Amino acid sequence: MERTGRPTLAVVGATGAVGTVMLEILSQHADIWGEIRLIASPRSAGRKLAVRGEQVEVSALAEEVFDGVDIAMFDVPDEVAAEWAPIAVAKGAVVVDNSGAFRMDPDVPLVVPEVNAHAARRRPRGIVATPNCTTLSMIVALGALHAEFGLRELVVSSYQAVSGAGRAGVDALRRQLSLVAGTDLGTRPGDVRRAVGDDTGPFPEPVALNVVPWAGSLREDGWSSEEMKVRDESRKILGLPKLPVAVTCVRVPVLTTHSLTVHARFEDEVTVEGAREILATAPGVVLFDNPAAGEFPTPADVTGTDPTWVGRVRRALDDPTALELFVCGDNLRKGSALNTTQIAESLAAETR
Amino acid sequence: MERTGRPTLAVVGATGAVGTVMLEILSQHADIWGEIRLIASPRSAGRKLAVRGEQVEVSALAEEVFDGVDIAMFDVPDEVAAEWAPIAVAKGAVVVDNSGAFRMDPDVPLVVPEVNAHAARRRPRGIVATPNCTTLSMIVALGALHAEFGLRELVVSSYQAVSGAGRAGVDALRRQLSLVAGTDLGTRPGDVRRAVGDDTGPFPEPVALNVVPWAGSLREDGWSSEEMKVRDESRKILGLPKLPVAVTCVRVPVLTTHSLTVHARFEDEVTVEGAREILATAPGVVLFDNPAAGEFPTPADVTGTDPTWVGRVRRALDDPTALELFVCGDNLRKGSALNTTQIAESLAAETR
Repeated sequence: MERTGRPTLAVVGATGAVGTVMLEILSQHADIWGEIRLIASPRSAGRKLAVRGEQVEVSALAEEVFDGVDIAMFDVPDEVAAEWAPIAVAKGAVVVDNSGAFRMDPDVPLVVPEVNAHAARRRPRGIVATPNCTTLSMIVALGALHAEFGLRELVVSSYQAVSGAGRAGVDALRRQLSLVAGTDLGTRPGDVRRAVGDDTGPFPEPVALNVVPWAGSLREDGWSSEEMKVRDESRKILGLPKLPVAVTCVRVPVLTTHSLTVHARFEDEVTVEGAREILATAPGVVLFDNPAAGEFPTPADVTGTDPTWVGRVRRALDDPTALELFVCGDNLRKGSALNTTQIAESLAAETR
Repeated sequence: MERTGRPTLAVVGATGAVGTVMLEILSQHADIWGEIRLIASPRSAGRKLAVRGEQVEVSALAEEVFDGVDIAMFDVPDEVAAEWAPIAVAKGAVVVDNSGAFRMDPDVPLVVPEVNAHAARRRPRGIVATPNCTTLSMIVALGALHAEFGLRELVVSSYQAVSGAGRAGVDALRRQLSLVAGTDLGTRPGDVRRAVGDDTGPFPEPVALNVVPWAGSLREDGWSSEEMKVRDESRKILGLPKLPVAVTCVRVPVLTTHSLTVHARFEDEVTVEGAREILATAPGVVLFDNPAAGEFPTPADVTGTDPTWVGRVRRALDDPTALELFVCGDNLRKGSALNTTQIAESLAAETR
């Protein structure tokens, strides 16, 4: 394939759970990039990873790896992004960052292409941020409904997959499942906790046969950082800086795909028919909503797919301005790698 | 132990998941009842079950088994309760029924002793109903807050354990966990569904490594029967027939203990301190809420215990009249067997 003249892409954090999915997606969209450079921590340097059917050697993160890079996708911890994204920008790259380091910076757009693609054009710091995976798992559907009905309030509860905490989260659940499967654990006081022991991985409690109402770190007044992200990022993406948003984030024993229940109140009366029409035609959304035929989205259906799936569309029985939804999105695809890649590809189109 | 003169109790549905817990609780409260008669379907007749340290033979459901019974606790399917509870009443028993057959009957009180014990006194049909396990897993905490602040709206999402669907639910999750544990399933399209096959037990979708936004049967406008129960029963128990209640019920791969996120709006401004004081002293409630110390309720802690556990108490950031809560209750104890037994014991006290 002829790649001369096409932009050069750097993938920073290529060996992580999200990086792995980025490489899969890049392999499916093979005609966009010239060189693809894979970057990770020094510990992973020298490994070879497959992308577009070729083995590419991973380079250690360093200033010179950004020489000649047009666009860099970052999926690294906040503090690494905070340090290295500006270095990549100084070297001439536009950075698409999937960390939390820049999302709320007023000079960094927070972009979901289906909702606010225009925002990516104004990027004074040379950085475009991509939202937290929990926000992303619902925001495409909500953006479509907001455009038609005008959002006035959100009450959201999450059912978050362990891969939101990276490979360590996946490993923790798999290990714990091996300890409890085939036993009679899970019905007596403390039995799951004793079986799992103190090694609960990146979670504060056992996650097998359990749900854990905590994600992230402690913020003011008892809120978790994950809950604050969903509120703050939703407001910024939708351009509704004062939208009332109440969120409770809960980890569940699912490997991939975040699910959310959404109670969304709008400016005026809504109808289920109207909402279904919007969702059925919105880009990036699949309406899967026919309970009589057993159709509603679950992670088992959604994992590995790109869109935001929406089901259980009901109008609140006591409030004709509110809708109830159940929304699922693959947290590793649209929730992280896909959204980042979509933004990078739209920036690549700019450079042509 | 001297049991002469004490009331006679019948346990109808003694061999089920809830019946088994009833017998455990009866064994812990050994000084209340005279004879305890165990009743089940003809299929289970003749089996012997342990209660209060004795082996008691199970009788098949028939009119004559209610001869001399003062109080009968029923945990059987709706249609069995609808037929047999009136027969037990005609034989002179007061029935405490855990099915859905009578809950919304205006002549049948729906009772949670910590919230509306007084309601049990007026029972024109001789039947007292006990709520659905999902309603029960949160209502004690909400009743305490309502008594002080006056509830104005509820938005609720559930994280329901498989034992809410009885032994068949427990067996289905255990079987599915054995199929997926120790594999790399759960991250590729359709892999969990293929591994589990068509035998998803009482659930419409696989529940291992999944969450399923459906419980019960289809009602009007896309609502599930379980969601309607939570709304209708909460209104009846709290004495608020017009309370706006929006509910989404979701099954999770947990064996025992239902969890719920609750967004509760009250008449006036609330404070977290005020809510915590109420919850810390409310009968039947445990406040477990110190995220800085990693304290919030999870099913792993709550299973096998009697109270309603409440954590993650926050005031909505954008509405000073609303609280966010995460609530857990053992669906087989307070959610079914314990509430039924509590009511039966209070009726026994009446007869003394």
